[in-house]
Amino acid sequence: MASNSFGQIFRITTFGESHGPAIGVIVDGVPPNLPLTESDIQFELDRRKPGQSKVTTHRKEPDKAEILSGIFEGKTTGAPVALLIRNEDQRSKDYEDIKNLFRPGHADYTYWMKYGNRDYRGGGRASGRETACRVAAGAIAKKILHQHKIIVVAYTLAIGGIYAKKKDFSVIEKNIVRAPDLEAAEQMIAKVEEVRKSCDSIGGIVEAVVHGCPPGLGDPVYDKLNARLACALMSIGAVRGVEFGAGFAAAGMLGSQHNDKFYMDGDRVRTRTNHAGGILGGISDGEDIVLRLAVKPTSSIAQKQSTVSRDFKAAILEVKGRHDPCICPRVVPVVEAMIAITLVDALMMQKALK
Amino acid sequence: MASNSFGQIFRITTFGESHGPAIGVIVDGVPPNLPLTESDIQFELDRRKPGQSKVTTHRKEPDKAEILSGIFEGKTTGAPVALLIRNEDQRSKDYEDIKNLFRPGHADYTYWMKYGNRDYRGGGRASGRETACRVAAGAIAKKILHQHKIIVVAYTLAIGGIYAKKKDFSVIEKNIVRAPDLEAAEQMIAKVEEVRKSCDSIGGIVEAVVHGCPPGLGDPVYDKLNARLACALMSIGAVRGVEFGAGFAAAGMLGSQHNDKFYMDGDRVRTRTNHAGGILGGISDGEDIVLRLAVKPTSSIAQKQSTVSRDFKAAILEVKGRHDPCICPRVVPVVEAMIAITLVDALMMQKALK
Amino acid sequence: MASNSFGQIFRITTFGESHGPAIGVIVDGVPPNLPLTESDIQFELDRRKPGQSKVTTHRKEPDKAEILSGIFEGKTTGAPVALLIRNEDQRSKDYEDIKNLFRPGHADYTYWMKYGNRDYRGGGRASGRETACRVAAGAIAKKILHQHKIIVVAYTLAIGGIYAKKKDFSVIEKNIVRAPDLEAAEQMIAKVEEVRKSCDSIGGIVEAVVHGCPPGLGDPVYDKLNARLACALMSIGAVRGVEFGAGFAAAGMLGSQHNDKFYMDGDRVRTRTNHAGGILGGISDGEDIVLRLAVKPTSSIAQKQSTVSRDFKAAILEVKGRHDPCICPRVVPVVEAMIAITLVDALMMQKALK
Amino acid sequence: MASNSFGQIFRITTFGESHGPAIGVIVDGVPPNLPLTESDIQFELDRRKPGQSKVTTHRKEPDKAEILSGIFEGKTTGAPVALLIRNEDQRSKDYEDIKNLFRPGHADYTYWMKYGNRDYRGGGRASGRETACRVAAGAIAKKILHQHKIIVVAYTLAIGGIYAKKKDFSVIEKNIVRAPDLEAAEQMIAKVEEVRKSCDSIGGIVEAVVHGCPPGLGDPVYDKLNARLACALMSIGAVRGVEFGAGFAAAGMLGSQHNDKFYMDGDRVRTRTNHAGGILGGISDGEDIVLRLAVKPTSSIAQKQSTVSRDFKAAILEVKGRHDPCICPRVVPVVEAMIAITLVDALMMQKALK
Repeated sequence: MASNSFGQIFRITTFGESHGPAIGVIVDGVPPNLPLTESDIQFELDRRKPGQSKVTTHRKEPDKAEILSGIFEGKTTGAPVALLIRNEDQRSKDYEDIKNLFRPGHADYTYWMKYGNRDYRGGGRASGRETACRVAAGAIAKKILHQHKIIVVAYTLAIGGIYAKKKDFSVIEKNIVRAPDLEAAEQMIAKVEEVRKSCDSIGGIVEAVVHGCPPGLGDPVYDKLNARLACALMSIGAVRGVEFGAGFAAAGMLGSQHNDKFYMDGDRVRTRTNHAGGILGGISDGEDIVLRLAVKPTSSIAQKQSTVSRDFKAAILEVKGRHDPCICPRVVPVVEAMIAITLVDALMMQKALK
Repeated sequence: MASNSFGQIFRITTFGESHGPAIGVIVDGVPPNLPLTESDIQFELDRRKPGQSKVTTHRKEPDKAEILSGIFEGKTTGAPVALLIRNEDQRSKDYEDIKNLFRPGHADYTYWMKYGNRDYRGGGRASGRETACRVAAGAIAKKILHQHKIIVVAYTLAIGGIYAKKKDFSVIEKNIVRAPDLEAAEQMIAKVEEVRKSCDSIGGIVEAVVHGCPPGLGDPVYDKLNARLACALMSIGAVRGVEFGAGFAAAGMLGSQHNDKFYMDGDRVRTRTNHAGGILGGISDGEDIVLRLAVKPTSSIAQKQSTVSRDFKAAILEVKGRHDPCICPRVVPVVEAMIAITLVDALMMQKALK
Repeated sequence: MASNSFGQIFRITTFGESHGPAIGVIVDGVPPNLPLTESDIQFELDRRKPGQSKVTTHRKEPDKAEILSGIFEGKTTGAPVALLIRNEDQRSKDYEDIKNLFRPGHADYTYWMKYGNRDYRGGGRASGRETACRVAAGAIAKKILHQHKIIVVAYTLAIGGIYAKKKDFSVIEKNIVRAPDLEAAEQMIAKVEEVRKSCDSIGGIVEAVVHGCPPGLGDPVYDKLNARLACALMSIGAVRGVEFGAGFAAAGMLGSQHNDKFYMDGDRVRTRTNHAGGILGGISDGEDIVLRLAVKPTSSIAQKQSTVSRDFKAAILEVKGRHDPCICPRVVPVVEAMIAITLVDALMMQKALK
Repeated sequence: MASNSFGQIFRITTFGESHGPAIGVIVDGVPPNLPLTESDIQFELDRRKPGQSKVTTHRKEPDKAEILSGIFEGKTTGAPVALLIRNEDQRSKDYEDIKNLFRPGHADYTYWMKYGNRDYRGGGRASGRETACRVAAGAIAKKILHQHKIIVVAYTLAIGGIYAKKKDFSVIEKNIVRAPDLEAAEQMIAKVEEVRKSCDSIGGIVEAVVHGCPPGLGDPVYDKLNARLACALMSIGAVRGVEFGAGFAAAGMLGSQHNDKFYMDGDRVRTRTNHAGGILGGISDGEDIVLRLAVKPTSSIAQKQSTVSRDFKAAILEVKGRHDPCICPRVVPVVEAMIAITLVDALMMQKALK
């Protein structure tokens, strides 16, 4: 185990269950003398929190982060920054009916087989609630990236086959599915509403772009920047696939098409295309890092489903609780956070070797 | 850096450049008393080595692995196993013409920006030759998995849009593209030949299946089994994307379709479908682990390409050397190796906590 | 950095300053299904807490640990256990006078040079208060060791040259200096009282014994059990040296004296002497692990001392606050905790390779 | 396990047994563009190699290091540097008689209990021969420190109670025990000769000084510079204790004596004494780092000793082979190497956070 940490120099360690007293994160390796307040963190937490709109769960969590350490007189000291988020709107009784059933698509069965126990109240550690800690830590990472003029933007590229056709980043936070295309957003929202009404859920694609990343970040061989990012992003519960640049489309391309030709843009080396997604040989090349994530439809749906019980008998499950019909809009800030954390770690590693 | 290691308890550390005197790997955390000979390792190395067929590079490397440590009287001792592979068929002069040019699709430019130097002879550390060490280490991992009756099989699912339609594992090693469908293999081979003749290269998809993995492997949160596997596989140079189970197709699915319903198969919990790809909440569920990789077309092609030089001027590149028109068949054993290494590490971690 | 974690599989990560809102620890890698309550932890915390007797600081901290995660229905789940301890009896104003001075023997100057800032209120992260988190985590480690019948005992062997002559473990908790010899304890206490009255402090030696450790724990080469223990114990602020078995006395011995001869004790291999301190080649040999720590006199003394200020001018320091004239009795539970944490990690690592 | 690596950013990984074909080390995290030749490494290896003088073992090993990777055109590239040392003067038959006996003071018994096997030829992985790899890697670390004007010097402070009374570093390499006092060296040599004639061995104390270390290296809490150094040095097989600055003498001191008073020496903050040994709160303070190691008498002695056999029966052991009557002079370069490796890692970690 010891699997609740991510990162090497800039490292987060998280704890907490969705229905315990609190969740939280220790962020180690924060550079000293960085201005940091609770509102910096709250801003990002508010983007992830439940109950924001009709397309997200109605669970209400204020998700207020308390800074417990690492800040003195408004600035980081170099000591670890601990953030605590108390759980509030817990309805453990929602889970009473299903405490002995393995929910399809959830980690109930695998936790049971791994640990021989199960915190049935909302998924325990496997709950999406854990991602609030990632977002809180990511807010710190983003502040560091901001100093380096590196910007991370994620958005919903598609829901259930409906794709954004434009990439207007200015509208992402102006529609409840976080699509970069208001027109497509309308269709996506309609689709999610329809799905919700049929007690179902639906998947989608989240895309992310990193702008301003200097060339040279990432390490060759096992800690390639794309490998580290893939690990960071596949560790988000709902993600089923990750691709960079041309991604799976590269499988159908010729080398002469796929190779990004270099050219001089003033005194800067650029590439005419970006099929590599900003990473060559595991190291950033200065072009935008572009990646996409397959997001599965939420496993919690209100339909009756056949399953088995903890005593290994066939059973029928009917999940209550409050769930997201499409998790993409809430995955967006989590994706940004994990990318930001990975990049800060890579930045620091690069400085170590200069 | 320190990025030349992979794994936590079962950990490989590799070294060597394609045109230096040797490459090699130290495998730490090998359990004691495992029978192991050089021929166990050679078997896997031979599957990866260049010059096997008309669809691979004509570079000839015997790739003989010498065991330098960790074995006594035919068995592992628990000490690290070091494997050394001398380089032989080097033609550094092939690279003289391009020593000052950044090859499109290669790591030349990013290494230059990261390190301020460049071993121009064949890519140095970024060369695919590094993967021989992964395969050698993977042979040890496979022997350990074999003791647990866990089988890892990878194969070429598609090349340039031509898909295997059958999955007959018995034919994989009987065709030079390593497809599980002899008929599709014929078409793929024809496609690769055509591409080679036009001095080009082509991408494909490699799929892998792990059979016999017990439930409970992998850790929740940041070391999810799929996250670790994604990291392991994205660290292979040619890979541009990775997906598990339904993968990107899940983005278009409803929860009611995607959720794998549990049922009792005798005394074993199984799922009726396997959209999750054998991993739920980051932990193996006992179903086959199924994953797919997007493999880009090889960057080295014999066509003239526009690029820039090390002194930042426009230039025309003409790559000589001997290259693979489609790298999929040689990626297959590397994929198996990285999966095997990741699983052994997960197995050991799981034992630690029992 | 990322230096606020200790351990590999069983890993603690701590945060918090002595005068911030709280300190705490995340314990990752706790095996599932271990009964654990707050009172298990409180018992050990009470042994370390300030204000216990006339030989310790009069600072009063209830040091109540709140369990925030990882426990369900009275047992560990396998998820990380987070423990929170709120700070209460802070008198930051005690530190106003010295906020611009570097206290001799403290980390003020080195933190300033490292981080360019300083949380002057009681030492911030360098405060001995940090060790409460170690003790809290150590309480969990001790419970795990208890299941393996491994007992860790530490005690004050000497204070200012007064040595315990007996080793009666039953009296350790019955005297306020935690010596295993009541008569020597009386003399030690008198010595500490005398030192306190002269506004000074005094050093000592803490010894620890691990009984019941099975042969085979620890790894050869860089993770030798003694190397890991040395790291764990030298990370306690007041420790200036560590020795195992014969320790520094071995420097004056002959091989024929120092070698511990093996013999059969029934069906168990034992050694006639224990100069190696229970560890051979970095691996436990089944004899008691015996080690000793040099504990420096507390740096905070009430005498006037010459020093320099943050603007690099000569100055006179007069420390107020409430300090320990001899820290040995309060170091004892910290030593036990760090040993227990190290052993649990070694136990798990050993299981991983079986 | 995975215990054959040391360091985080600058990390060494070693392999090899004393009687296998070769030993070697991979040094990862070497900064690029550092001039490095085999003779840089050979210089340090020659200081450690056996057969140098009458006070060391007569085993003859040329210990020639071959650089296998990481160097291009005379400079490091940033890729891992692998060093290979072939074993030559093996006399495995020296060990035939003792293959079934557990040698007192050696790791034979503990390896047997840990791994269930044993490479009886000369200790296998537990052999002091492994330290050649540390010295080879340390040569690289020293070159890096040299660029920062940091000098690491170790020497024999005492053998069997005979102490160096002077510290004249210029004579260390001019006497075969590596003492900084020629007169004391004479006495030490006479003592070792006497011990050798009586088929015995003798212990000693090795002291090390680091000059020129800037303030700010090392991390608070668990990666204190002294904790990391203690780990590094206790991992050397013959070491039984480590102390910094006043060390165990601090146990008898008053705080008013022990506290190192700060003063301004021009524009530099200095301390009037150096009881802390150059490290305050785990971070270097700019004074010389001073530490001492207890070195046990070599376990291999030519006297008959009672012991037990692998089938757990009483037995008499008579060790042949060629051994060091006092290992201190050969430990000296190993100590320097481990300190250098630890400091380079700390330097890099510090840069990461600037």
